[in-house]
Amino acid sequence: MEPQMDIPALQNFVAREFPQLGDDFTIEALTDAGVRVRLNVGERHLRPGGTVSGPAMFALADVGMYLAILARLGPVALAVTTNCAIDFMRKPAAEADMICDTKLLKLGRVLAVGDALLYSVGQDAPVARASLTYSIPPK
Amino acid sequence: MEPQMDIPALQNFVAREFPQLGDDFTIEALTDAGVRVRLNVGERHLRPGGTVSGPAMFALADVGMYLAILARLGPVALAVTTNCAIDFMRKPAAEADMICDTKLLKLGRVLAVGDALLYSVGQDAPVARASLTYSIPPK
Amino acid sequence: MEPQMDIPALQNFVAREFPQLGDDFTIEALTDAGVRVRLNVGERHLRPGGTVSGPAMFALADVGMYLAILARLGPVALAVTTNCAIDFMRKPAAEADMICDTKLLKLGRVLAVGDALLYSVGQDAPVARASLTYSIPPK
Amino acid sequence: MEPQMDIPALQNFVAREFPQLGDDFTIEALTDAGVRVRLNVGERHLRPGGTVSGPAMFALADVGMYLAILARLGPVALAVTTNCAIDFMRKPAAEADMICDTKLLKLGRVLAVGDALLYSVGQDAPVARASLTYSIPPK
Repeated sequence: MEPQMDIPALQNFVAREFPQLGDDFTIEALTDAGVRVRLNVGERHLRPGGTVSGPAMFALADVGMYLAILARLGPVALAVTTNCAIDFMRKPAAEADMICDTKLLKLGRVLAVGDALLYSVGQDAPVARASLTYSIPPK
Repeated sequence: MEPQMDIPALQNFVAREFPQLGDDFTIEALTDAGVRVRLNVGERHLRPGGTVSGPAMFALADVGMYLAILARLGPVALAVTTNCAIDFMRKPAAEADMICDTKLLKLGRVLAVGDALLYSVGQDAPVARASLTYSIPPK
Repeated sequence: MEPQMDIPALQNFVAREFPQLGDDFTIEALTDAGVRVRLNVGERHLRPGGTVSGPAMFALADVGMYLAILARLGPVALAVTTNCAIDFMRKPAAEADMICDTKLLKLGRVLAVGDALLYSVGQDAPVARASLTYSIPPK
Repeated sequence: MEPQMDIPALQNFVAREFPQLGDDFTIEALTDAGVRVRLNVGERHLRPGGTVSGPAMFALADVGMYLAILARLGPVALAVTTNCAIDFMRKPAAEADMICDTKLLKLGRVLAVGDALLYSVGQDAPVARASLTYSIPPK
């Protein structure tokens, strides 16, 4: 399914609707299957040792999948996360930004499902993987 | 398995090791099976409409299970979250604190597994449920 | 939410609609929150060493939650499993039957969510835990 | 990590160690990242309407990931499934075989993690996705 919104439209939508997210996330690419989002890592995302916290990685995967759905449904949509299964596989690189690649596997009338892979910038092996389900509200 | 640390010892450990968490969490009870932890909801935990964000709920479940393990293994332990499956079932009450009840189901040599239920203070039905796995480092 | 069907009605429904399940499952109890179901362990459920296989445990959790929903929605319902997160925590006892306790946490208009704990008969500690989501079709 | 076993060696290992699986599964391909396995669908895998059952799909994902690990660790390994999160996204095609593509994301000293996508033969859109974790026993 082709995107209905481009990167500036998505970035504006997030800034307007989720002001709490501030400048945490930058959309880097928008593909037929999903989006690539960067977590601009700051002090508030870190744990002792300088590694990105679990909740910050969860937020990155969640925002990445939300944007992949939003791009396809358009700005009227208000998809709600209903489920996330996340595996933390490796320690993130200290103080490095993180990249999340999301891929929509289903965009149904009621539910959307997708996969996310999370990387520390500069490392090849993924730090975490997640799958997420969203409930799509009736029009 | 009986707790090796009491509530003040746990609260001090968290304050010292995870200063980034600030005053977000209060340990309310410590049982044979787990802990009860409160998320002291502040502006930074909220989404538009005043509801607690997904990442804040993930953090609450994660802290709750971490503390349940820590209490039993003692302050030398450094368990690491390897997996979380979380279901968001209902909208949290606007601006209400949240309570998380965790229950350890397995505390093995290598892995610990447990369940968490999350409530908005003042509501009976749970807002979210989570199961979490931690890797226990070798001594 | 109170059950709309009793144990014989549930057992008959399963026998009629899912003849492939044969005599694998026996409903042992029906409560306000869920059901207790027994897996009558036979050769086809076992792996080398006589322990119950992962797919047989998955089937037990799935049937347990399906019945908990069915009991409440009545025999017209055709809920479909959309997600399952299952943790295998301990080795099942060799050739012992297994018991599954399910608990509905949400029975919404569109989605139902619940938790399951699986035991080997004669062992106190749970062998597996699962959480499951079902999609409820529109009437 | 390169495979240590080829397809005939894997197929023989499974036939010897898991005789209960019979001829259910055929290994179709072995790649650097994982394996492709076919479920040879028979009456015992079906639900009313001729669609493959959830437990049969779970078994397919589980076997696929087990083989991906086994191929890399060699026949001494006895990895044990500790977690599976599976999403059922679409109805399988009636009576069609299923194909599972697995991809190892981590093969650590203690844990292995991977993703699986399941397809009905002849359909482009995936029927299910799964992520699985295995515990690797000490040598």
